[in-house]
Amino acid sequence: MKKFLNQAENFIPEMLEGIYLAHPDKFRCVNEDLHCLATARPVPGKVGIVTGGGSGHLPLFLGYVGQGMLDGCAIGDVFQSPSPEQILAVTQAVDSGAGVLYLYGNYNGDIFNFDMAAEMADMESDIRTATVVAADDSAGAVPDGTEATTRRGVAGIFFVYKCAGASAARMDDLETVQRIAQKAGDRVRTLGVALSPCIVPRIGKPGFHIGDNEMEIGMGIHGESGIRRGPQLSAEQIAEEMMSWLLADSPCQQGDEVAVLINGLGATPLEELYLMYRHVHQILAESQMRVFRVWIGEFATAMEMIGMSISLMPVDEELKTLLNAGADTPMFRQFPA
Amino acid sequence: MKKFLNQAENFIPEMLEGIYLAHPDKFRCVNEDLHCLATARPVPGKVGIVTGGGSGHLPLFLGYVGQGMLDGCAIGDVFQSPSPEQILAVTQAVDSGAGVLYLYGNYNGDIFNFDMAAEMADMESDIRTATVVAADDSAGAVPDGTEATTRRGVAGIFFVYKCAGASAARMDDLETVQRIAQKAGDRVRTLGVALSPCIVPRIGKPGFHIGDNEMEIGMGIHGESGIRRGPQLSAEQIAEEMMSWLLADSPCQQGDEVAVLINGLGATPLEELYLMYRHVHQILAESQMRVFRVWIGEFATAMEMIGMSISLMPVDEELKTLLNAGADTPMFRQFPA
Repeated sequence: MKKFLNQAENFIPEMLEGIYLAHPDKFRCVNEDLHCLATARPVPGKVGIVTGGGSGHLPLFLGYVGQGMLDGCAIGDVFQSPSPEQILAVTQAVDSGAGVLYLYGNYNGDIFNFDMAAEMADMESDIRTATVVAADDSAGAVPDGTEATTRRGVAGIFFVYKCAGASAARMDDLETVQRIAQKAGDRVRTLGVALSPCIVPRIGKPGFHIGDNEMEIGMGIHGESGIRRGPQLSAEQIAEEMMSWLLADSPCQQGDEVAVLINGLGATPLEELYLMYRHVHQILAESQMRVFRVWIGEFATAMEMIGMSISLMPVDEELKTLLNAGADTPMFRQFPA
Repeated sequence: MKKFLNQAENFIPEMLEGIYLAHPDKFRCVNEDLHCLATARPVPGKVGIVTGGGSGHLPLFLGYVGQGMLDGCAIGDVFQSPSPEQILAVTQAVDSGAGVLYLYGNYNGDIFNFDMAAEMADMESDIRTATVVAADDSAGAVPDGTEATTRRGVAGIFFVYKCAGASAARMDDLETVQRIAQKAGDRVRTLGVALSPCIVPRIGKPGFHIGDNEMEIGMGIHGESGIRRGPQLSAEQIAEEMMSWLLADSPCQQGDEVAVLINGLGATPLEELYLMYRHVHQILAESQMRVFRVWIGEFATAMEMIGMSISLMPVDEELKTLLNAGADTPMFRQFPA
């Protein structure tokens, strides 16, 4: 295993110790549980935004806790959901009376645990919560047109975080922050492609195999099956196939302005992400869509997976303002535009 | 080859087209040569800082062109130096009368071409240049104590960019910017470790081999030989060995405050970099050194190499102020502290 690792079972606790040591002025640990993380600088009266999910996807999820984005994160082991008690602890830590929005990806374990935490927060602490589940993976709706409930939450949640976070930061109320998160979530679509698997440290070997000259379009960020597996194509062919699925599934239309996210899944160099963006930009132009703004880098990874994803979100003035707002978190910083 | 690629010979031009398409408000292309890149927002009267070098190391080098950092970059093909003519074109584009600092890594090809460009800038355009060469790789001085002239320039150049960039941004003169760059360059030391090779697209296969259970401490960012190859150790053992080389070679002393850079070489997940930082932090504490601030992520890569590097720089008030200044470039953003 080509990993920097001690005992596999200590991977996440040791990683988290590194996180708190590196960012003592940004993060605080709640209830002495490393897995319960909150911003070090709570804003009185602000709607809190709490996320959570399995580890192995940095910067997702905890890396977006900070100014202009999220307020807390419940952290599971690699690809494992955090517990309802951990989510509740984070909820109690970030609530300042304005209520808390739960914003996370569409996985059954997370839904179950966040729903249970919401009940506990209401009953035990009288904290009002609302929930938006990000379900942006176009592979969930393809090829049989099944409903959004089957879509996984993947990299596109970054846009939902950004819009909801900027809304909360300007002191919008819980209903507004929830509406905006839902609006961004309804609009964003993502499709990934993997050229290799990744290795969960406790397992010690790839959970599945992709051949030397193979790729899989639509693979999820835990290695879930995608739309199509086949011989590895050129960057241009991959971009064309991905964009054709994406544009068919996305609410983007001719004439739209579109926010674009080009996300590396772990081992893919930034050079290749920019090369892919060149194709994406051209295809959008040919489809009579204009790029409002593009973010390129690693936003939601699958550890050392070789691969990338493309997210598209048609934007209006409200979303543009929120996307352009400043943010300052340990793993994402942006000056106000 | 598990790369997003069309024709290998078009890798860098297509990547660069993506760069300009993604950041039209940040970068401009000089003389219609994609390899000659300058900031879109020149600051009149400011000392210009020009860098350059081979491609394959993003965010290094071009990703640091922007507010508070650099003004221009001459871009070579993968692991190839840019030409003197390209460096000259960038120099002419960024000069605003206050002179230009050349700041790049210690490789013979780059030194030769930048020196030639400096002569041409003086003779053809009457532009005053100064030069600081970053030579931070402790592997260059180990184990036989050879002189700094043999050290390669690696990830530590980020600290030199940051300090020199902040100096130029506050309108220091050329002598001052050069002095500060030299001071940072004299203090910073870096050591890397590789668990895998990387693949130059035109070559299509790894330039060398590292066994399944092997690692190489001190390997350069082009795969240059390191200090020691051996069986892959645990994260803790790797950190201890690296820190022992680094602290022996670095000017860091007991009682110092130290700036730390934990850099991923390409395919290593952020989780593992934080896990490694935990060890680095503990070793520095045991050595009676205090972490002033740490930067963790990908700052200087070798495409898809699995590995990481640690950079240390003892800091005084002058360097701390410069490191804490804001910066806003396409691949590095930091709010003023």
